[in-house]
Amino acid sequence: MNEYSIGIDIGGTNTDIGLVEANGRVAGRQRLSTQTFTDKESYVAAMSEGIRTLMQAHGVSHIASIGIGAPNSNFFEGCIEAGTANLPIKERIPLKEMMEQIFNVNVVVDNDANAAAYGELVYGGGRGMRHLITITLGTGIGSGIIVDGKLVHGHTGTAGELGHSIVMPHGRPCGCGRQGCIETYASARGICQNYIEAAKQAGRPLSVAERESLTCQQVGEAAAQGDPIACQAYDTTAQWLGIALANAANFSAPEAIFLMGGPTRAGEALMQPLRKYFEENLLFLYKNKISVRLSELNGNDAAILGAAAIGRIEC
Amino acid sequence: MNEYSIGIDIGGTNTDIGLVEANGRVAGRQRLSTQTFTDKESYVAAMSEGIRTLMQAHGVSHIASIGIGAPNSNFFEGCIEAGTANLPIKERIPLKEMMEQIFNVNVVVDNDANAAAYGELVYGGGRGMRHLITITLGTGIGSGIIVDGKLVHGHTGTAGELGHSIVMPHGRPCGCGRQGCIETYASARGICQNYIEAAKQAGRPLSVAERESLTCQQVGEAAAQGDPIACQAYDTTAQWLGIALANAANFSAPEAIFLMGGPTRAGEALMQPLRKYFEENLLFLYKNKISVRLSELNGNDAAILGAAAIGRIEC
Repeated sequence: MNEYSIGIDIGGTNTDIGLVEANGRVAGRQRLSTQTFTDKESYVAAMSEGIRTLMQAHGVSHIASIGIGAPNSNFFEGCIEAGTANLPIKERIPLKEMMEQIFNVNVVVDNDANAAAYGELVYGGGRGMRHLITITLGTGIGSGIIVDGKLVHGHTGTAGELGHSIVMPHGRPCGCGRQGCIETYASARGICQNYIEAAKQAGRPLSVAERESLTCQQVGEAAAQGDPIACQAYDTTAQWLGIALANAANFSAPEAIFLMGGPTRAGEALMQPLRKYFEENLLFLYKNKISVRLSELNGNDAAILGAAAIGRIEC
Repeated sequence: MNEYSIGIDIGGTNTDIGLVEANGRVAGRQRLSTQTFTDKESYVAAMSEGIRTLMQAHGVSHIASIGIGAPNSNFFEGCIEAGTANLPIKERIPLKEMMEQIFNVNVVVDNDANAAAYGELVYGGGRGMRHLITITLGTGIGSGIIVDGKLVHGHTGTAGELGHSIVMPHGRPCGCGRQGCIETYASARGICQNYIEAAKQAGRPLSVAERESLTCQQVGEAAAQGDPIACQAYDTTAQWLGIALANAANFSAPEAIFLMGGPTRAGEALMQPLRKYFEENLLFLYKNKISVRLSELNGNDAAILGAAAIGRIEC
């Protein structure tokens, strides 16, 4: 007998609903265009309709939980806060309350970075672990921290912002208004900046046009193919990330730290130097006890699995 | 009706045993000379005798728990590890097992820095909180992290080493073998170094003899009295500590961070600039939501209360 959960990944473009088996297989999917909904009632009705369609199509009469990954969400209150930037619905959306009334199961709402950590814990490389950290490299750097099998939300509900750990006092300016956050050295933009600096240092400075059109994906693909300047850019990324992750290890001494997100597609061009710098910067107590690994969740399923996992853990 | 707990603080010189009321009053104490015991059986027998003496003297027939704060202890196994530097007993001491057999109550063993966090949570300024961090400034920097009302031990059992967070890549050399740990800027020795540098910058460099005889207590007393060089030394300490604590806030978003230990006796000469730099370095999400405060445990009782609190929380 299988137990099914629902995972819903809310993004500014699409809202993806998945019916997830206990072993992490996504049995079926439904997709809504987020931008077509301008009030919470019609949005929740459409999500509910999507869930019912999935259940009927797979002959499922009962679901264990519903987990929702959403931007600007409040885990404690189970809602998306009013005024969320990328959503057309500007009012507060009390998703937990509304969905629980409809389905009579526990509904849990959390943000995407936290959902990624739950997903790794329940369905990915973190199965069986009690302590792990996930780091999502992208436009910014998101993180989720699992301590004793539970996600750390903290007093404010917004814990786990490792992307804004300051690794270099008075370092690069960050979008958060401060300086030297790890995000400025290891996000997609940070990696491009590392490339621009490496090219200059190699005596091959980029033109303004080249700098403006440069993408992290290009740098990652070049690095994966052994381009020396791109590899240097990733080496610099790994140096800074090695310090940040070693500092994170001091906090919760996890069993593993998992990396995910676009820039990790560079593979060993990132991971090989990262493991080296991480170990070098690690306090002796932790040496050779904490692994740094790529996420084991399939990229296409990761967001839905993360959302489904929230419901599995927190209910 | 009152409920009593036992707190035992094991140090290289003394072993202090306290009978603690539920409200945190230490009703009575017994002291053993740690160095007089060379085998675990006689040591545990003497501690047990001390506990019984306290119980009889105060007419207490039942205790709720026994908590023990000890160096080089293993929380998971409830023991002091073999070969502990400052203890004459060199074999492994399975305190939990031995004491539980005698008193038939739960016994919990943890290290001093963690005991400080438990103490603040149960008996100090952290009463009623679910998330806090304690930082003990001294020869080194110890820390204890409470998440959701529980101490973070991590996968290795040795989590919570914030003193070894790197705040300055390639910074001052640290006793741990690495560079730029916050301990090198804000421990007693780090504060002395800050004073030596401030004096030099003020055009009044210290002689070799002055440098060698300088103590953090002198710097703290001078700072408390407004001495400009000592105040500058504490300002520098606060700058670095402000970054380290702001980075810690990103992790667990605690309600408060409590400071304790000798160097904090400088009072507002430390706390006033520290609060300023902490807020400046704090991510916008946390601004004005996390307080930085002095410990509210009486220094003389702190170690016994911390030990007693371990038993209260973890049993």
